[in-house]
Amino acid sequence: MDVIIKENERVDIIDFNGLKIIQDLNSFRFGMDAVLLSHFAKPRPGDKVVDLGTGTGIIPILMSRRNKDTKFYGIEIQSSMADMAKRSVVLNHLEDRIKIIEGDLRESPNYLGTRKYQLVTANPPYKKVGTGIINPNQAKAVARHEILCNLDDVLMAASKLLVVGGRLSMVHRPNRLTDILLGMKAYGLEPKNIRLVYPNLKKPPNMVLIEAVLGGKPYLSWMPPLIVFNDDGEFTDELKEIYFGNYKAD
Amino acid sequence: MDVIIKENERVDIIDFNGLKIIQDLNSFRFGMDAVLLSHFAKPRPGDKVVDLGTGTGIIPILMSRRNKDTKFYGIEIQSSMADMAKRSVVLNHLEDRIKIIEGDLRESPNYLGTRKYQLVTANPPYKKVGTGIINPNQAKAVARHEILCNLDDVLMAASKLLVVGGRLSMVHRPNRLTDILLGMKAYGLEPKNIRLVYPNLKKPPNMVLIEAVLGGKPYLSWMPPLIVFNDDGEFTDELKEIYFGNYKAD
Repeated sequence: MDVIIKENERVDIIDFNGLKIIQDLNSFRFGMDAVLLSHFAKPRPGDKVVDLGTGTGIIPILMSRRNKDTKFYGIEIQSSMADMAKRSVVLNHLEDRIKIIEGDLRESPNYLGTRKYQLVTANPPYKKVGTGIINPNQAKAVARHEILCNLDDVLMAASKLLVVGGRLSMVHRPNRLTDILLGMKAYGLEPKNIRLVYPNLKKPPNMVLIEAVLGGKPYLSWMPPLIVFNDDGEFTDELKEIYFGNYKAD
Repeated sequence: MDVIIKENERVDIIDFNGLKIIQDLNSFRFGMDAVLLSHFAKPRPGDKVVDLGTGTGIIPILMSRRNKDTKFYGIEIQSSMADMAKRSVVLNHLEDRIKIIEGDLRESPNYLGTRKYQLVTANPPYKKVGTGIINPNQAKAVARHEILCNLDDVLMAASKLLVVGGRLSMVHRPNRLTDILLGMKAYGLEPKNIRLVYPNLKKPPNMVLIEAVLGGKPYLSWMPPLIVFNDDGEFTDELKEIYFGNYKAD
């Protein structure tokens, strides 16, 4: 099927297997957080996965490499983003595995049904409204600030979509960790595994990767630090592996 | 004043300024957690400080280096530990600055008064009763397992002792972080500053240093990772500085 690429858009090749993504040069484009989350989340064979606020569809597209019989559902409220995501799915011939739904993630249990998914992923807006400058670009603003959904909405949706024992994998800002842990507990999502991402050894962490299990037994495991740049300002070996590693399906 | 050292005890010199500590060779001796907490807590000139469950008194003794007009109160429930701590205070000529009180930290607001202290420190037992093997040595068991006090008791005592705006500095295990953050919030102690201690770059963190402010405004800051050993298995420069640095009073 032919795929239309609009004048303001660009097709980027995102891995050595030739996966592609359509992005609007004037709008929100994916960052390292999406790459790290898609690596951290680890869908298992046979999983049905929902990505809440999927944007350009980058997270399900990257996760689709891991194994061939996982199905993904990406919810995106912004029409132009959902449209790009749908075309990226076609461009990668992933129509049988990834379904993009234009809609509000707060209503996602209505579209998608409850207690049906083994994994929910989310790279939600990090900033509370009232903190920091709101980007004049609407798509960027919605991706960064809690304008159309907040942390609570994401946790509530995940708690309804997941089967008991299902996992929520999320990337967020470390300075929201108190809110994240309290919110997870409030929705029956037990924090089980956590990893901090440090730009380098001299700096505070700027991302947190966290996995919670619906109805899980309380015990929080930690992973080694994920360091992005070494002392020479180059990607560490682990980051290179995450970005450029040759993914094969399980 | 003469200080009696018992047959089962040893006097260790703990820094280049000649500070000493009496420890029982058969009982609980201080570890890296106490050293890191005393460095992290940073009492300010004029502060009145309570150390909850002070054990041998190591934390107030180490913190006493930082400035000369800070007063410390160490609460210890185990009679033999409190007795050792009192003798260590005398050995270091710190009677005017450190007062050791034999008592239950849960009753500490009764002994010490409420809303009077700018800083509370705690290196409490890490393990819930029912997890891990209870040490047959009573002093070690009490120091490691929540037998005579639990996290909730520590947070409640701190919330009563502190002035509004006063700080609780604590060292604990990262796998208890959900309990710690929820418990702090429940007692009006806002988590404000946090640092993870990693044994080395390949391992998960095994200690968390955390500061909360009574009635503080919600915002959680993070510090760079504290790495204990470098790739060669030697102390990192920062650890050497913390252990062997030449402390001068502010």
